[in-house]
Amino acid sequence: MVLMDNIYLDHASTNSVDPRVYEFAKKYINAGNPSSLYEYGQEAKQLITDSRVNVAELINAESEKQIIFTASATEANNLGIRGTSYRNQKDGKEVISSAIEHISVINPLKELAKNGWNYQTVPVDKYGTVDLDSLKEMLTTNTVVTSIIYANNEIGTIQPINEISEIVHNYGKYLHVDACAAAGKIPIDVQKEGIDLLTLSSNALGGPMGAGALYIRPGVKVQSIMPGGGQEKGLRSGTENVFAIAGMGKAAEIAKKEMNKESARLKKIRDKLIFEITKIDESYLTGHPTKRLPNHASFRFSYIEGESILLNMDMYGIQIATGSACSSKTLEASHVLLAIGLKHEEAHGSMVITLGRENNIEQVIKIVKAVKETVDRLRKLSPLIK
Amino acid sequence: MVLMDNIYLDHASTNSVDPRVYEFAKKYINAGNPSSLYEYGQEAKQLITDSRVNVAELINAESEKQIIFTASATEANNLGIRGTSYRNQKDGKEVISSAIEHISVINPLKELAKNGWNYQTVPVDKYGTVDLDSLKEMLTTNTVVTSIIYANNEIGTIQPINEISEIVHNYGKYLHVDACAAAGKIPIDVQKEGIDLLTLSSNALGGPMGAGALYIRPGVKVQSIMPGGGQEKGLRSGTENVFAIAGMGKAAEIAKKEMNKESARLKKIRDKLIFEITKIDESYLTGHPTKRLPNHASFRFSYIEGESILLNMDMYGIQIATGSACSSKTLEASHVLLAIGLKHEEAHGSMVITLGRENNIEQVIKIVKAVKETVDRLRKLSPLIK
Repeated sequence: MVLMDNIYLDHASTNSVDPRVYEFAKKYINAGNPSSLYEYGQEAKQLITDSRVNVAELINAESEKQIIFTASATEANNLGIRGTSYRNQKDGKEVISSAIEHISVINPLKELAKNGWNYQTVPVDKYGTVDLDSLKEMLTTNTVVTSIIYANNEIGTIQPINEISEIVHNYGKYLHVDACAAAGKIPIDVQKEGIDLLTLSSNALGGPMGAGALYIRPGVKVQSIMPGGGQEKGLRSGTENVFAIAGMGKAAEIAKKEMNKESARLKKIRDKLIFEITKIDESYLTGHPTKRLPNHASFRFSYIEGESILLNMDMYGIQIATGSACSSKTLEASHVLLAIGLKHEEAHGSMVITLGRENNIEQVIKIVKAVKETVDRLRKLSPLIK
Repeated sequence: MVLMDNIYLDHASTNSVDPRVYEFAKKYINAGNPSSLYEYGQEAKQLITDSRVNVAELINAESEKQIIFTASATEANNLGIRGTSYRNQKDGKEVISSAIEHISVINPLKELAKNGWNYQTVPVDKYGTVDLDSLKEMLTTNTVVTSIIYANNEIGTIQPINEISEIVHNYGKYLHVDACAAAGKIPIDVQKEGIDLLTLSSNALGGPMGAGALYIRPGVKVQSIMPGGGQEKGLRSGTENVFAIAGMGKAAEIAKKEMNKESARLKKIRDKLIFEITKIDESYLTGHPTKRLPNHASFRFSYIEGESILLNMDMYGIQIATGSACSSKTLEASHVLLAIGLKHEEAHGSMVITLGRENNIEQVIKIVKAVKETVDRLRKLSPLIK
């Protein structure tokens, strides 16, 4: 981030573009229109194909032909969920998701519900792991799309996608996986894991804003949710954002190459943060203690409010999140934290740290000090402590 | 464009980003998430508001609150047409467009037709001007959205939007105007012209790819076509592409300031091109001779094919278009050229020149020479000449 003295810890909300990605992609700010027949347009077309290959390889897709670029992960979620459900509605009008999906998965499902679909949510345990028995019970042969987040952005818990996939395919039709937070952090193999549809975000990988991608397994039929010029096999129209797509491809390439090493590095910082911050009185880790994203540390503190924590930490030059960035403008408690069994007042005291490229182990002391002082200060002011 | 020795004449297809826009916007490649509550996120939010003001001022909208940013003009057309039609379907299920709309307008309307809406197209005269009498006949009190392109991208003809607006509001409900090709080239005043919904493209203004905008007149109700995090008043979800939106705002600001002068400059080049190129045997201007975009010159040549013209011109280092870029990958004749009364074989021989910032009057000689030689060469090979 452009913040020199700052410590940015909200990479789940938005990521800085990897400088190597920017160096590569900025050459294509003025790319041709890939639909143009002259050489200049065809070069842009080739660039998009190259990018598709890189994205396909990151998740071990059958080929680059299975990757559809969109303008955002939200659009990819919409295409994967609404595009697949409407296209296959003759097979039934039922959809399922976990109780801890991102709002860009929940709201497309709610739109289906408004149009007469049966939408159920599978509960999760106290760590945020999907309850597989409940999933089995809910699935019927009419279940067209089951959407499960690979790893949750608020609590970091990684789902047992292999097992989920097996269960879904025993009963229902298609498994859609929102992998925005997980991709580039942990290995994903859509073929081995039996994933039918998978959403990726350029920015979450260290690419620019303005691109997302949907993986579609060969044979899965999806209909367009954005009619127009017929780009991306007719599934989503609009002239391709070559800069963003080229950047996403480069980011995917780097992620594939460096993931193991970088995730191990982030995991060390994460573990140190968890160790130190959970020493604070009545502070608790949220999400799974071990099956969690390597860059993810999330907590709750009794008696105080996440929004106040956020604003206080900001005064230290440290940016953290409280619940999902998308819903942080509302005052409602996070549906994710309620789903793992927290009470409303507990859910309100949450703090989410998501680490990225610029973070290092030396920052831990400063972060922990700021958290401690913030919690102390807010608790002194808290009407909830007698 | 990055093409040093080239002469790029296909600005309707894609535009290079104005260097001043890029200088401004690139600072925000790593902007915060506008939904984040810390200062860094709120700065990004403010930046988007500033951009909204600039876009509103370009088209004299009531206030910046009437501007909804999307990821592309295609998405803005979808939101303006499908979002408005579905939201107001209790008022009737009829839609109308001209016969010469962009495909990103036609296909959303066809989607409505597939869902039971009555979709009619108003014919145009030989210059591509909408037939107002036919429009009057087609409109009923059930016509929810009438969509008319402000100025066509293939033939440059500017529509009498004032008169069209009056007619639409006498009979139907809402006038949607696709102003992608017109904005920044000729003055637009949504209030004076009585426009209810208007689509703009960042890239067409000299801004980056990845942003579009829909103007919505106060009181017009539109529903979301992209459920998710609820950004942009809930009308289109997805984390804002701050870089692209900031760039669009800057491009709109520059366009407003420089439009008169720049359009006068381009008009001179255009007129010289038209004068010289129509001297070629059996070459004809397409579109209106005077009521046309100042940067737009379009032609047809008997006996030869547009695709061959395009590829030959490319060998001279000159990029031109033949029909809409979006449909140039198909071999069908342009629906726009058929609508102005050309026969199929006539429509296939088209060449579209759209001028931009980098073009200058000195280039005319080289362009005209290349066109003449290309036409001569192709005609010698043409089986259509005996």
